[in-house]
Amino acid sequence: MKLINAQLIDIRPGYCEIHIPYDKNLTQQHGFFHAGIISTIADNSAGYAAFSLMEQDSSVLTVEFKINLISPGDGKLLIGKSTVLKNGRTLTICKSEVFTVKNSIEKLCAVAQLTLIELKNSSDQKNGN
Amino acid sequence: MKLINAQLIDIRPGYCEIHIPYDKNLTQQHGFFHAGIISTIADNSAGYAAFSLMEQDSSVLTVEFKINLISPGDGKLLIGKSTVLKNGRTLTICKSEVFTVKNSIEKLCAVAQLTLIELKNSSDQKNGN
Amino acid sequence: MKLINAQLIDIRPGYCEIHIPYDKNLTQQHGFFHAGIISTIADNSAGYAAFSLMEQDSSVLTVEFKINLISPGDGKLLIGKSTVLKNGRTLTICKSEVFTVKNSIEKLCAVAQLTLIELKNSSDQKNGN
Amino acid sequence: MKLINAQLIDIRPGYCEIHIPYDKNLTQQHGFFHAGIISTIADNSAGYAAFSLMEQDSSVLTVEFKINLISPGDGKLLIGKSTVLKNGRTLTICKSEVFTVKNSIEKLCAVAQLTLIELKNSSDQKNGN
Repeated sequence: MKLINAQLIDIRPGYCEIHIPYDKNLTQQHGFFHAGIISTIADNSAGYAAFSLMEQDSSVLTVEFKINLISPGDGKLLIGKSTVLKNGRTLTICKSEVFTVKNSIEKLCAVAQLTLIELKNSSDQKNGN
Repeated sequence: MKLINAQLIDIRPGYCEIHIPYDKNLTQQHGFFHAGIISTIADNSAGYAAFSLMEQDSSVLTVEFKINLISPGDGKLLIGKSTVLKNGRTLTICKSEVFTVKNSIEKLCAVAQLTLIELKNSSDQKNGN
Repeated sequence: MKLINAQLIDIRPGYCEIHIPYDKNLTQQHGFFHAGIISTIADNSAGYAAFSLMEQDSSVLTVEFKINLISPGDGKLLIGKSTVLKNGRTLTICKSEVFTVKNSIEKLCAVAQLTLIELKNSSDQKNGN
Repeated sequence: MKLINAQLIDIRPGYCEIHIPYDKNLTQQHGFFHAGIISTIADNSAGYAAFSLMEQDSSVLTVEFKINLISPGDGKLLIGKSTVLKNGRTLTICKSEVFTVKNSIEKLCAVAQLTLIELKNSSDQKNGN
């Protein structure tokens, strides 16, 4: 989160929004946010959205995700918004939408669908699944 | 590629291998490679593998990918190996395997399946799809 | 569509809804709609939604899809609702939601994200990509 | 499995192979195996492969899958081959390859990546996740 200067803007039960301001270190050859950064914001915001519905001493891990890169990461700001679709006993299913903001216009940049797992009594556990 | 110190190790028609040495800036709270870095290496190596079969003045864009994070990114080195499964007229389908190396043991860390698109006569084109 | 008795309920630019009534041939060992049927309705409704924005003499092919099976296919009716997220020059990105209906209550059963390709001047073409 | 006449050809720890002979009820408008059938064989063979490594009184559910449809389902036989990539405590990750056979030539038709969950002590349980 620090390396990419991600900012937690909004966190509510089942929802999270993260912003990443433009930084030329995060862009590819055309000056657009790199696909890796777009994936990371989609994943991180889903992690927080899922965790918002879990027990305090749980930790959360991403099992898998799928992302469609819909338009170039062209803008001064990258926004990730994630919503929990299903909060199951073990698994949580989220969707993430990533937007770019350019000249104050928000544009859909990527959509992702993610599966996360709750690790109970493991706020410092190191492993997964 | 520079920010994360990714090194192109092997590139052949339909295949690519990339290495990323351990760097504490690329890790999450437990000192493991972050999921965002794991996704990025899977995506980048697939991009090179796909491009290796395309025309010189084409460029390549990732349409979408799906990744399963199988074991923690725990190691001194992260390796991405990508193979082209189908080289179509417009679309290329790749699989990527990501390994961690710890005490000289290579361990499967993630597997991904990706769809890429060839943009012909566009080596400097900025858009996609 | 015929084998599984799928009914086209609503088709508008960028949207499609399909229904499949309960039939014990379409269920697995517990009497629930089989995952294969759930996937099929998600795919078919996305195909119609995407095609609704294409030229008349084009045909549409599913490139890939990802589906999360969220709750059992337990109901008297299966509903697939698909929306186009991005209608690109070549590729169309859709999301599909599948619901079960039991005792008049609609419940989210699966969510999918799909990539489709338009084959121009090919209403009878047989191949893809 | 019965409706689509799927035949279990090979089942070993961590591996499964299923065949579906051509049947015009399983095809789309061009006489090719329907994407729904291709997805079903990919899912079913992964289910058996995953279950082969589970305890006898467990049952297995597909959490999610992603499939790339690589070539048309054009042939006299559809073959699904699935391999377990990771057999975790709770989750199993599989890959499935689907082939068509035409004039004795096997051709890659689809590749899938799947996440399955083990439900312990639940050989007759009806729910998931």
